[in-house]
This record gives sequence, C-alpha cells and structure tokens, in this order.
Amino acid sequence: MTLDRNATHDASSSASHHMWGGRFGTRPDEALAALNDSLPIDRRLWMQDIRGSKAWVTALHEASVLDPDERTALHEGLDRVGERLAAGGEIDATDEDIHTLVERLLYEEVGDVAGKLHTGRSRNDQVVTDLRLWCLDAIEALDEQVAALGMALVRQGRDGVDMLLPGYTHGQQAQPVRWAYVMAAHAWPLLRDRERLGEIVGRVAVLPLGSGALAGSGVAVDRERLCELLGFRAISQNALDATGDRDFVAEMLFAATLLATHVSRLGGELVTYSSTEYGFVRLSDAFSTGSSLLPQKRNPDVFELARAKASRTLGDLVAMLGTMRGLPAGYSKDLQEDKTLLFDAVDTMLVTLPAVRGAVATMEPVPDRMRSALRDTLLATDVADELVNVGIPFREAHGLTGRLVREAEALGVPLREVPSEHTKQIHEGLPDILEGLGSFEDSVERRRTVGGTSKASVEAQLDALEQFFSN
Amino acid sequence: MTLDRNATHDASSSASHHMWGGRFGTRPDEALAALNDSLPIDRRLWMQDIRGSKAWVTALHEASVLDPDERTALHEGLDRVGERLAAGGEIDATDEDIHTLVERLLYEEVGDVAGKLHTGRSRNDQVVTDLRLWCLDAIEALDEQVAALGMALVRQGRDGVDMLLPGYTHGQQAQPVRWAYVMAAHAWPLLRDRERLGEIVGRVAVLPLGSGALAGSGVAVDRERLCELLGFRAISQNALDATGDRDFVAEMLFAATLLATHVSRLGGELVTYSSTEYGFVRLSDAFSTGSSLLPQKRNPDVFELARAKASRTLGDLVAMLGTMRGLPAGYSKDLQEDKTLLFDAVDTMLVTLPAVRGAVATMEPVPDRMRSALRDTLLATDVADELVNVGIPFREAHGLTGRLVREAEALGVPLREVPSEHTKQIHEGLPDILEGLGSFEDSVERRRTVGGTSKASVEAQLDALEQFFSN
Amino acid sequence: MTLDRNATHDASSSASHHMWGGRFGTRPDEALAALNDSLPIDRRLWMQDIRGSKAWVTALHEASVLDPDERTALHEGLDRVGERLAAGGEIDATDEDIHTLVERLLYEEVGDVAGKLHTGRSRNDQVVTDLRLWCLDAIEALDEQVAALGMALVRQGRDGVDMLLPGYTHGQQAQPVRWAYVMAAHAWPLLRDRERLGEIVGRVAVLPLGSGALAGSGVAVDRERLCELLGFRAISQNALDATGDRDFVAEMLFAATLLATHVSRLGGELVTYSSTEYGFVRLSDAFSTGSSLLPQKRNPDVFELARAKASRTLGDLVAMLGTMRGLPAGYSKDLQEDKTLLFDAVDTMLVTLPAVRGAVATMEPVPDRMRSALRDTLLATDVADELVNVGIPFREAHGLTGRLVREAEALGVPLREVPSEHTKQIHEGLPDILEGLGSFEDSVERRRTVGGTSKASVEAQLDALEQFFSN
Amino acid sequence: MTLDRNATHDASSSASHHMWGGRFGTRPDEALAALNDSLPIDRRLWMQDIRGSKAWVTALHEASVLDPDERTALHEGLDRVGERLAAGGEIDATDEDIHTLVERLLYEEVGDVAGKLHTGRSRNDQVVTDLRLWCLDAIEALDEQVAALGMALVRQGRDGVDMLLPGYTHGQQAQPVRWAYVMAAHAWPLLRDRERLGEIVGRVAVLPLGSGALAGSGVAVDRERLCELLGFRAISQNALDATGDRDFVAEMLFAATLLATHVSRLGGELVTYSSTEYGFVRLSDAFSTGSSLLPQKRNPDVFELARAKASRTLGDLVAMLGTMRGLPAGYSKDLQEDKTLLFDAVDTMLVTLPAVRGAVATMEPVPDRMRSALRDTLLATDVADELVNVGIPFREAHGLTGRLVREAEALGVPLREVPSEHTKQIHEGLPDILEGLGSFEDSVERRRTVGGTSKASVEAQLDALEQFFSN
Repeated sequence: MTLDRNATHDASSSASHHMWGGRFGTRPDEALAALNDSLPIDRRLWMQDIRGSKAWVTALHEASVLDPDERTALHEGLDRVGERLAAGGEIDATDEDIHTLVERLLYEEVGDVAGKLHTGRSRNDQVVTDLRLWCLDAIEALDEQVAALGMALVRQGRDGVDMLLPGYTHGQQAQPVRWAYVMAAHAWPLLRDRERLGEIVGRVAVLPLGSGALAGSGVAVDRERLCELLGFRAISQNALDATGDRDFVAEMLFAATLLATHVSRLGGELVTYSSTEYGFVRLSDAFSTGSSLLPQKRNPDVFELARAKASRTLGDLVAMLGTMRGLPAGYSKDLQEDKTLLFDAVDTMLVTLPAVRGAVATMEPVPDRMRSALRDTLLATDVADELVNVGIPFREAHGLTGRLVREAEALGVPLREVPSEHTKQIHEGLPDILEGLGSFEDSVERRRTVGGTSKASVEAQLDALEQFFSN
Repeated sequence: MTLDRNATHDASSSASHHMWGGRFGTRPDEALAALNDSLPIDRRLWMQDIRGSKAWVTALHEASVLDPDERTALHEGLDRVGERLAAGGEIDATDEDIHTLVERLLYEEVGDVAGKLHTGRSRNDQVVTDLRLWCLDAIEALDEQVAALGMALVRQGRDGVDMLLPGYTHGQQAQPVRWAYVMAAHAWPLLRDRERLGEIVGRVAVLPLGSGALAGSGVAVDRERLCELLGFRAISQNALDATGDRDFVAEMLFAATLLATHVSRLGGELVTYSSTEYGFVRLSDAFSTGSSLLPQKRNPDVFELARAKASRTLGDLVAMLGTMRGLPAGYSKDLQEDKTLLFDAVDTMLVTLPAVRGAVATMEPVPDRMRSALRDTLLATDVADELVNVGIPFREAHGLTGRLVREAEALGVPLREVPSEHTKQIHEGLPDILEGLGSFEDSVERRRTVGGTSKASVEAQLDALEQFFSN
Repeated sequence: MTLDRNATHDASSSASHHMWGGRFGTRPDEALAALNDSLPIDRRLWMQDIRGSKAWVTALHEASVLDPDERTALHEGLDRVGERLAAGGEIDATDEDIHTLVERLLYEEVGDVAGKLHTGRSRNDQVVTDLRLWCLDAIEALDEQVAALGMALVRQGRDGVDMLLPGYTHGQQAQPVRWAYVMAAHAWPLLRDRERLGEIVGRVAVLPLGSGALAGSGVAVDRERLCELLGFRAISQNALDATGDRDFVAEMLFAATLLATHVSRLGGELVTYSSTEYGFVRLSDAFSTGSSLLPQKRNPDVFELARAKASRTLGDLVAMLGTMRGLPAGYSKDLQEDKTLLFDAVDTMLVTLPAVRGAVATMEPVPDRMRSALRDTLLATDVADELVNVGIPFREAHGLTGRLVREAEALGVPLREVPSEHTKQIHEGLPDILEGLGSFEDSVERRRTVGGTSKASVEAQLDALEQFFSN
Repeated sequence: MTLDRNATHDASSSASHHMWGGRFGTRPDEALAALNDSLPIDRRLWMQDIRGSKAWVTALHEASVLDPDERTALHEGLDRVGERLAAGGEIDATDEDIHTLVERLLYEEVGDVAGKLHTGRSRNDQVVTDLRLWCLDAIEALDEQVAALGMALVRQGRDGVDMLLPGYTHGQQAQPVRWAYVMAAHAWPLLRDRERLGEIVGRVAVLPLGSGALAGSGVAVDRERLCELLGFRAISQNALDATGDRDFVAEMLFAATLLATHVSRLGGELVTYSSTEYGFVRLSDAFSTGSSLLPQKRNPDVFELARAKASRTLGDLVAMLGTMRGLPAGYSKDLQEDKTLLFDAVDTMLVTLPAVRGAVATMEPVPDRMRSALRDTLLATDVADELVNVGIPFREAHGLTGRLVREAEALGVPLREVPSEHTKQIHEGLPDILEGLGSFEDSVERRRTVGGTSKASVEAQLDALEQFFSN
C-alpha cells in the first residue's frame, strides 16, 4: 500500500487529557480518534480560543464564580499557554482538539484551578465563538485583498483609457470599446464583493458564548459584557440555534465563491487575451511560467488557476450546505466539517488574490494588437443607427445592415469597401452613410449613456472605483 | 423510443419573425432551435417585458427618438399585447423568446412602428432588466411566506411554553428544554433569511436598461428616468458588467438555498418527532399522507419533502455558479441557463413554504409523550453544577458525575435512585445533592442567561419574534 | 404578485380517487397537494407504468391470486388505459401521481376488479420499477446520440488529416498538430462515455418489483418470471434496499454529467476557434445565431450552450446525491425528487447532443487561418531535440533553446531568423540546427509514438473511432 | 492579522532548480509561487514518480537514447532519491513540484546525466501517469475497507437473524422486519460499490506516458513496453486527450461519493437507533464520545461524521467536474486542482471506513427495545391481506383496514383489541381475522419472495454477502 498518507494522527501517543470520559470504561479506539480528532485542523484557532477563554474567565469572575486570585492565575496561565503555542509548542500534540490542548496546557501551567475554566461553558458555544472571531479576521483580510486587486485593475485602466480593442459578446467581436472599460467591467463586481463582505459582518459578529451546550449557561454570566470584551456586535438570542447555527459559515463560503467567480472571469478573459492569436496583453516574466518540455512556452498559469479556484470554493460551499441539510437544531457532530471547508476556501482566496493582483499590476497591454484586431464589422450597429437617423425603423435598419454584412463577406472586403453599386441596392442612403462612418473612436464616443464606453463615462468610472478601493 | 418527452418545441411551425437573420442565408436548424429557443421558459417574464418596454418607449420619446404619436401607438399596442398574453394567448407560440414574441405581436397590433421599439436597446440589457424586475417580485413573495412560517412557529411556541421535552445534541438527550424553545430555535434562522433577502434587494434593484449590447446605448436616453419609471434603486455603471452580470441570480439562489436549508432542518426534526418512538407531535389529517400498501401509515411527506428541497435548490445554485465560472465579461449565451434555475428554486420554495407552514400550524404537540421521554440523566449537568457549588472545579465535577452515570447504568436505575452508599464513594456530597436535585422545571429555570431555555427568556424570544414576523 | 407561475396544480379539482385515505378524517390540504403531488412530473412514466402493471397482473395470475378472467380483464383494461393516455387523454388530471391516475382510469375501464391490481404491490416497488425501465430506454437514446456526435467528429477529422494548426496547452501555442488530431481528441472521451453507459446498464436492469413496501411482497409471485417479462437482467436481493435505492439514478446523472463535460470542452474549444482572432472554423448559417442589436453578429450559441449544460447536469447530480445523504434504508419521500432531476439531465443531453452534432457536421474548417497561425516558436521542442541529438542532455538543451527564444523575442524575429552570430553564442551547433529545422509537417511527423499527431497515428485513430461509433 | 495560516511556502528559500526558465529574465514572483507550486500536495506521489521515471529510463535505453551506463546510473540514482524521500528527506523542500524535486535530487546523486531523464517526456504525461498509478493503489485500499465494513454488517446480521424490530418507511413504522435484514440492506449497496470500483480500474489503468506535452513523444519509445513495466492494462490513443483527460479522477470521486453516501445512510440510521427513544443499539465505549459539559452523554460522533462525509466528498466531486467544464482538450493548469480533491476524498474514506467498521463491529443490538417498539398497527397489511383472502379486492381491503386503524386510534387501543362490535361494522370477517392474526414472527415469515424479510431469505442474503465480502 503506497498511498503514503501524511499520517495526521498517531493515537498511540494520544494525550491523556480529555474533556470527558468519566462515564466510559475504555479509551476511544484509534480508528475513532483518527476520524474524530480535529486538532490538526482546528489548531489554528488557538489565538481565538485563548482570547475567548480569557473573556470567559473575566465573566466568571464578574459572576462571582472565580475569586480575584483565580481569575489572575487563569489569565496569566492562558497567556503563557498562548506564548507556548505562538512559539510552535505542542506541534505534535495529539489532543482531541484545540480546546482540549489549551486546557491541558493550562493545567500544566496553573494546576487544578484550570479545572474551573470550563464552568458553565460547553465546547458547543466555545468552538463557534472561536470560529466567528476567526471569520471576522478573515473578512478583513479578504476585503483588503479585494480592494488591492480592484486598485490594480483601476491602474491598468488609467493607462488604457485611449486604447481601443474589440468588445466581445458570445466570444465574438461586437463593438469597439476602451481597454479601461474592460478593466472597469472586472472591477465593478469586486465592489459588490466588498459590499457583501461588509453585510455579512453583521451576521458573523454575533456572540454565542454563554449558550452552554444547548439550553443556555447554568452560570449567570453577563453576556453583553462578553460581547463587549470580544468585540462582537450583538449576542445570540436562542442557545439551541446559536450552537447549531452555521449559516455564517455558509455565508462566508458563498461570498468567497462569488468573489472567486469574479476572479475566474477575469482570469478566463486574460488567458484568452494572452494567447498568440489575441495578443492583447503580455504577462511579466515574474508572473509567467514555463514548460518542462516546450522551451518557448510563456504560460498564464496564474490566470488558469484563478479560473479554477471558483470550482474549488464552490465545492466547499456545496459540502457545507450539504452537511447542514436536514440536521436538527442544536449541535450535531456533522458540523465539525465546517472548519476544514472554511479554512480551505479562505486560504484559497488569500493565496489567489495576491497572485492575480501581481499579475494584473505587472502585465503589459499591447495596444497595437488591440488596434489591429478591430474589424470594420464592429461598426455595423453604427450603420444601423445612421439608417435609423434617416427615418428607418430600427428593426428594418438592422435587417438592411445584416444584408450589407453578408455582401461584404461574400465579396471578402471590409464593410466600408463594399462598392456603392452594391450598397445602393440594399438602401439608397447607404453609400453616404458608409462614407461618413467615422473612426472607431467616433463609434466609441457614441456610447455616452451612463455606463457606456465613451471616454467621459470611463473616466468617471475609474474615479468612482479608485475612491471606492482606497477605503 | 418511449421516453415521451413533452415536446417543448416544434420548429416546423416556428414563427417567421426573428430579431435577427439579415446576415444569414438560411433559417436556424430545428436541432439548434430546440436547444436555443427559450420561450417555454422565459414566457413567464411577459409582464416584466411589457413593463420594461413601455418605460423604454417613454425614454425614447423623451430622447426625441419617437414622436408623441409613435409613443402613444407603442404604449397602447404593448398594452394590447399584454392583454392577449394575460388571456393566455399565443400559448403555443414558437418564437425564439418572449422578447421576440412580444415584438411580433406588437407588429400585429401597430404595424411597422413596432420596428422602432428596439432602437438603442439590445436583448442583452432587456432580458436582464426583465429578470431583475421578476426577482424583486419574487423576493417579496418569498419574504411574505417566510414571515408566515415564522409566525406559525411562534404560535406553536406560545402554546408550548410550559411543555418540557428533552433537548438534544448529537441526536442524544442532553438537557430538558421547553417546546417553545425548540420552535423558537427554528424561527430565529428565518429572521436571518428575511434580513438577507432585504439586503439582496439593494443589489437586485439596479437598472441595466440603457446598456445596449455591451458598450452602452447609442441613444442618449435618460437612464435615471428609466430607473424611476421602473422602480429600481440605482443604475448600473458599466454596460459590459451590467449585461454579463448574474451575481444577483446567484445571490437569489443562495438566499433560497439557505432558507431551504432552514426548512430542511425543521422538517428533519419534525420527521423524527412524529415517529412512533418519539411521538412528540401528531400531524393533522389534512397534512398527512398515506401508503398505497400499508393501511395504517400516517406519513410526514410534507416534512420529508421539506428536508429534500434544500438539495434541489443547492443543485440550482451549483448550476448557476458553475455556469458563470470562467466566462469573460459581457454577455455569453451560457447565461441563458439563469432563468430555468432561478424559476425552479423560487417555485420550489413558494410551494414548500405554504405546505410546511400549514403542517406546522395544524400539528399537535403531545406533551405527555414529551414529558415521559425525560430521563433523570438529563439532570447530570445540574449534579455537576452542584458539585461546583460546593467548591469542586468543574472539570473534576464533570468526571465525578460521569462516574455516577456509569454507576446508575450498571445498576440499571435512574440517577437519583443510585443508593447513597454508592454515591458517597464517588463524592461524599452526592447523596445530599441528589436528594435536593429538584424537578425538570427547576433544571430548565436554571438556564437564565439571555438565549437560555428559562420561561422568561423563552417568552422574551417569542415576543421579539412575533413582532419581527408581523412586519 | 406577478410571478405568473405556470400553475401546475389546481387542488380544487383534485380527483377523488386516492390509493390511501381510509385512516384519515379529511382530504389533503391544497398546500400539501401542491407540494406532494407528482403527476405533472411522473406522468411521462405512463408507458412504463402500464407495462409493469401488465407484468404484475401476469405474475398475480400465475400465483393464483387472479383467475384467468380477471387477468384478461385487467390486461385489456390496462391496454385501453394506455390508449387513452397515448392519445393525450387526462392531460389535466390532478391525481396524486401516475400510478393513481392509471388505477383510476382502470376502474373506469373495468370496474371493481381494478382493485385487485395492487395486491401485494406497493408504490415503493412500482415506481422504482417504472423508473428503471425508463432509464434503460434513456441509456439507449443517449448512447445513440453520443455515437452520432462521435461520428460527426470523425468525419470532420477525415477531411482535416492534412490541415495543420497550432496545438495548445495552457491556451498557448505549443506544438503543431493536425486538425484531425484535435477532432479525435474530443472523440475519444465519447468512447469512454459509451463504455460507461454500457456498464451502468448492469446495475440499472435489476428488477425491484415484488419487493412490496419494504419487507418483500406478501404474495408469492415468481420474481424471476417478472424479470423475464420486463426484460431486466437480474432481480434485487433485499426489498428494503431495493425500494430505497437510487444509486442507479445517481449513476445515470453522473454519466450524463461527464458526457456533458466532454461536450462542454468541445463547445468551449469551438467557441474559441470560431472567434475572429482564431478563425479556424466557420459555423454554418443553419447553426449560427444573430444579435437583436448588432447586425453583423454570427454567434456560436450552440457551443456556448453546450459549454453551459455541464453545469446544469452537475446541479442535478448534486441535488440527487445531496438528497440521498443520510436517509435511512427503505423509502423516504425525499426520493421523489429523483424524477425531476433525472428527466432534466437526460432531456438536456437529448436536446444538446443533436444540436452540437449538427453544428459540428456542418461547420467548415478554415485551413488558411490555421496555417497562418503557426509560429516558428512551435518548433522550439524540435530545436531542443536536435541539441539532444548532438549529445546535450535534454534539460540543458531545453535551457539553451529557451535562451534562443528570448533572443528571437528581443530581436522581434522568428526563431529561424535569429542571426547565426547570436545563435552561435548560445550553442555552436544552433546555426546548423536552425538551418535544417524543416517544415511544420516535418515536426508533426516526428511524433510517431502511438497516440501522436503523425499522419499514420491519426489515421489509425480515425479508423478505430469510426468502427467504434458505427456500432 | 491572526489567521495563522500554516505557511506552506517560503519562496525566499526556493530551490534554485527549475524545469524551465531559460526564456525568462526573472524568477517567479513569490505570490505566483505561493499559488502555483504544488509540492506540498503532490509530494506524496514521490513513489509513483520514481517508479514511472525508472520505467521511462528503461524505455529510453531500449530506444537507444541512453547507453547502458547512463541507464544504470539513472536507475541507481533514482533508487537513492527514493531512499532519501522514504526517510523523510527534503521535507521542507520548496521546489515547484514533486517532479522538480526528484530531478533536483537526481542531479545531486548522479550529476549531469540527470539532465537526460526528461528526454521526450513532459510533466503533462508524467504527472498523469503518477496519478493513475496512485489511483490504482487507492482503489485497492478502498476496496479492502469496503469489504471489511460489509463483513462487519454481515456479522451483526448473523447475530440478529431472530431479532425483530419495526421496519420503517418515511421514518414511520411500516412492517416488522429482522435486524439481520436491516444490516443486509446496508450491505448490498457496498456490493455495488465494489463492483463500481472494479469497473473503474479498466479506465484508470490506461498508460498516458509517452504522450509528451500534447502531440506525442518525439522519441520513439515503445509504449506497450512501458505499459507492461508499470502494470497498466492499455495505452492511451491520443496524446492531446491523454494529457488533458481527468475523467478517471471524476470517476474516482464519484465512486467515493456514492460509497460515502451509503455510509452516510448507515450512519444516519444508526444515529437514530442509538437514541434514547429508539434504543435499538448501544455503541461500545471504545467508539462512543462524550461531552465537555454534559457528563452523561454517550455520543455517536462516529456515525454523525459518517453521515457528514458524503457532503465532503460531493464537494470534491463538484470542484473537479466544475474545473473540467469548458476547458479545451490538452493540458490546462486548472487541472492541477485534481490532486487536492482526489487525495481529500480518498483520505476521507480511508479514515471513515475503519471507524465505522469498528463501531458496527462492536455495537450491541438491544433486542428487548426492538421488540417493545413493535406496535400492532405493523400488522395492518396482514389484516388487509386476509381480507383479500376472503375475496375482497385489495384496494377495498386497504380502505377497510384503514378504517379499522382509525377506530383503534379513536379508542386508544391496539388493533387487535378493537371490540368486535366495532370491527364487524367495518367488515363482518374482521373479528375472525383479528383473532387469527398471529405473531410478528408470523408476519415476517409471510414475506417469502426473494429479497423478503423471511428467515430463509435473510439467511440466503447473509450467505451471499459473506461470500462476496470474503474476496
């Protein structure tokens, strides 16, 4: 058997400290421990766990459950545990989870008083408090990266206000647009991402601590005080709901997935634009990759991976929502899956966003290739519009222009070079219209409605986006 | 071949009106039409399409593209088209899509001036305007149903404040709770759903009309005026983004899925509670179903289907996000999938919610069964808490109580009936503690923190929820 | 409220026949019926339902439950019911499901003896028998369409054996290949699809009939005889498993999704190749679509939709697997979702495959554009190979060639035109190697291993594929 | 920022060896490396990589590309590299991937001749060869675990042939069944899993090596020989397909997900049966878990996690199929996601299956609780069957029995205790039928069809399953 799994658990050296076990005659089987133990995953919540525990100690003290000496001992003990973990201590610990590890180390530091820490608390409210604290940090980190990517797009746009290229629908040339306009089209979705992340905070920053296992804490702690100590915005209103609720994880995963989808769309478009056939952008050497066999390759791996990651985070979202389906209110062990999924999605985006930002910031647009890709047929709508201007209903004008395009194709010439003897037969006004058709710049400037590709509109967009991403 | 598909398309009778075709030598192949045509799906957008088109006519008039007579003719013609469609007319039409059907009927009503309707507009901005209008209605309809279900839970709760039953974690009896508390635990998530639906409105109610195909409209329509006419809150800022953006569909689907997940959790729990073994609730005859073979069956199909639907809507969400991944900015035909998925998810919830609400409203809790399910072991935490009160650190108290539970199991007696000669050996204070342990009511009243299962807390929850669901 | 749902259920006219109800005091509530009734979906199983019922009648007769007259009456009655349904009868029926409808019509045809049909049978074994019969037809229909698409690719390949174009990895030009080779690369996956469909048959063609509701039938019918009558390959071995098993639906959906994924990859690649920038293929008019606003557009909607459908079927698969998760053995109502999902995925592919096949069969490759896209850098591997031939280890040769490419880029000239004074400095053998580099055809013919792009290899592939798709 | 990601990449110490780079002016940016490098994931392919490379050396030698000394040097060098990696060497390496690491170490071992290893090979065919080799091992490992779980179910069944309990549909008591029958119902799906895994082997064991980057290898290696050396069953037929094909990964993930779904159904049912209310099974201490707060808890975490994991693997499947959608033939970097997903799903099942098997093997059924759960209404079908025996059509008999059930409910007595003055009014034969109704054993023995719950049928099932799982 050569699968060489990175053994994540060696139950034989399992720590002897457990948060439970009094009622059982034997220790957990190794096979159970391998499935059940979550320390390799939830270890990274140690900072949140200590922070939450310190606040809990304060609350227990204020509820007269701990005397001042106990409070101080526990606070200092937790700080020392934190220092040990910050220094990478207990990296090979085989405790059941981070809560057990912290409690075990606390016993090492302060002795039996450690046994008072968990008074009136359950891992059910503890873990979800830790995870919500982690999410608040994660939202901040994601938001910062989204803004940075948005700003990189705005900067590319600033340099590309006057670069014209074909705009595409259905992957086909449609109308000429500005390079800045394309960059902005990928920046606006990021604005929605930040908005969404901002809204989620309101539902993430709800304190569950003090919910006990399912029915509320048996100790009359002041939950509003805990809320204040830990920087939450509100407290949960039903302990059964609070301990079994993972809506906030699903919301995080959805926000990450929609963000990843935006990045995938940007990535997909830039893979196309960096092909030899399009050649609209050239990746910097620092963000290109090569081939082991083909010496000439300059691969846009960064954009391909960006394209792929939206499926990865979607998988995480599916796993989370699938896990929640049909569970009763309150905590079920199924919910332990939440952390693996959440960490994977957030990590994925925190690795992907800087790479994409770097690649966008350093790629070079190639205005000559953009310009040379522009075909006369991109002006077909302008022809139709001119026919409208001489009184022809648009639907008819559209049909006439279609015939003109067919004619041009049949003759193998650009639109403007279809001889007037041909165009006249389609509509007598066409020769004049084609004569006065104007440049691609003229066409672009015709789209002056808000949100259009005219220079004024594009510059207004860049200003708005820049301001938005500066905050 | 006996698959008997409901043939949704008979291309042989395909309408002769198309919005395009001037440039092509032949008509679309039947196999293409069968794949491409969307009328069977998007037909139900007809009201939104007419509403949007009327606003567009107004805007074209105000931009001096239409004279007053044309405006009036088109407005009246669109109204008549609406009447025909409202009456079920053209139910067998084989046009490419609803936009083509409406335009064709408009030609029938007003003649050639119909050809002016599409001036400066593209189906790309038209369809997404229609769909956003539809979503705004859908949000309202969903919100109303969510509130109604929430209220049904609150009412069940009002009747069940004094009914005690085991509270569960891991599917195991944990601590006694109130029936009202369980009902409230399923109501609070619905509150989050309404909050979420409310937030989404801000991103749905953004007008894309006036974006043209990708680059902005060639006609200088006043988009702010359109926004006002159609009741949107803001206008889109980049036409390439606006025509290719389906984030709002993904948000709708996610909101529907998280809502469906809540309903599935409620459904799953009630399937359990309506079993013979639990027997905590009895479904009304009007919401029970029977078996074709087993005459005695009283099946909770309504809750099973409620449990299942969260997977259905999740499938829709996966399909939508999967479709968006990797697409360039701007419209790609892939996005046509949006409507099938969105309609399916919204329809699913609009059928599921009333049925679940009805079943919840009419089910009868069975307090005797709840009460008789309560086991002494549910008071184990109280025993541990009492040990804490006599000065034992909680972790140790927990272990001692665990030993007590083992002893009770070994003797096959309830916790309180373990003889004092045994309990003394575990801890000398145990006999007194067990003596004074109190009732299940006492236990429930110990959880007095905000969000706990005490009477005061539960009644405060019901008050808050009732007020929330009344709006 | 303007959602205009196609009302699929009008409970007020609900048929009075039910397969159950004796134990209930009232009829099902309308809201329950709207959620619960499946006739609008399962109606299309009518042929399978009648076929299965006729076999059941035979089996009941052979088990002496029915006398010969009863058998004949029921057989003839079922045939008449079939004729009514084939003629579109009862299209507006509001029975609970197809089984109830058929039984009700049978009562109309033959009177009380109809009540004997369901002896020893349950809808649980009946519905899954119907569905498995349907799947067997669906597999055949899909298989036929897959073969037809495969053949269309082979035919495109036959015409394109001598057309050279760049082969791509990472969306970048990599090595020259034959057009036939690209077509074959999309045909081989279809071969795997057919293989997979063939394997699934073995697990679909397992008869559940005679399983009763969950515990086996109370009537000693000969299930092997039923198996033979209905054309199954084997009989199920555990009734609890057989009635709750939907593995075969998941397998169908997975097979459909992997097939759809292959079609999406073909579609995605052809969207790219039909762009102005690539221009390697030109869609026929009959399979092109146009734009409502842009008169010149020739859109590859067929390939875009093909690309999208893999997400749609994936959504169906997710919904099915999500629904099954965590259900106990035996039938749960959740499983009723199976048909909507299965029908959607199969229908999707049966509409998509003919359209894609038609588009592939009629598209025209453009060898001039392919040829003109070939860049000298495509020969870089050949340069490295030649350096290997003069004794340089490949890894070193790869590096040297990379330097040559940089030089060519810096000078802005094709690889072969880098002056020898430059190339000599990289490696003294390079001038000669570049001199003798040969044509793109030469390069293609170097890849002679089985599966390579040489002419012999490609023709062998086409032969093998043609034979395979002929069956 | 306190997310404390386990830094998986420290680019500052990045190894200086790359398989590419000659054409670039600078090294990859750290942000790119963090996204792009796959060594932390693909490191575990090292055994497969060395095995594949050794075969490649043999093939290069036989194709006269390497002389005997070079062959020997490379073989021995690769063995030494393998020893270093087996010993945990280079655990902190920061190479781009496992292929680069192996090549770098090979340089360390044998010097410049290492540069000849990659002649005619690409990472594109190399990585997929490695991964297919890994899959073959994984299938074997999974298959073994599936068989072991199946055997544990059979053994539980053997002990439980004579234990009767209610059988359920819709979560409601339906008919009495044997405990062995329930165990068998969960074993049969595992048989299908093994069948499926066996079929997949045929499509996994196809050798891609010798495909080069996309167009076939430039070296005329004997691919049939490679196939034999590496134990594959066939060779791939089109290099563009072979290097971009990940169907086999999707098949692995689907097989894992359907398997996980079966385990989730078993887990879900056992969570229910281990509740206080059902009490049909009691988990062994070694496979139970406790609560940090509630001292009495005996939680079935193992079955809850088993229930959850089907969503986890489904997420992996979604991510893989989502990634593949729309990609062109040939290798795209998106496909690098395959390994993370595949490893996660296989690891998940290889941890879950042993735990579930252990829990099933050691759990104790509680026949007294099963027996006391049996209600008279479970015999309702038997009553209806007896009415059929006295000549009443089944549908009518079903209705009459339904009335009997209502009567019993109204009176609050078991079915058999409804007074004959009541039952007579429903049907005159009922008093006698109820009198002679027989025991639950009698009822169970009535289901004698193949697959039924009679003793003979169940024992035949256990025999068949035992034989199947022994291989």
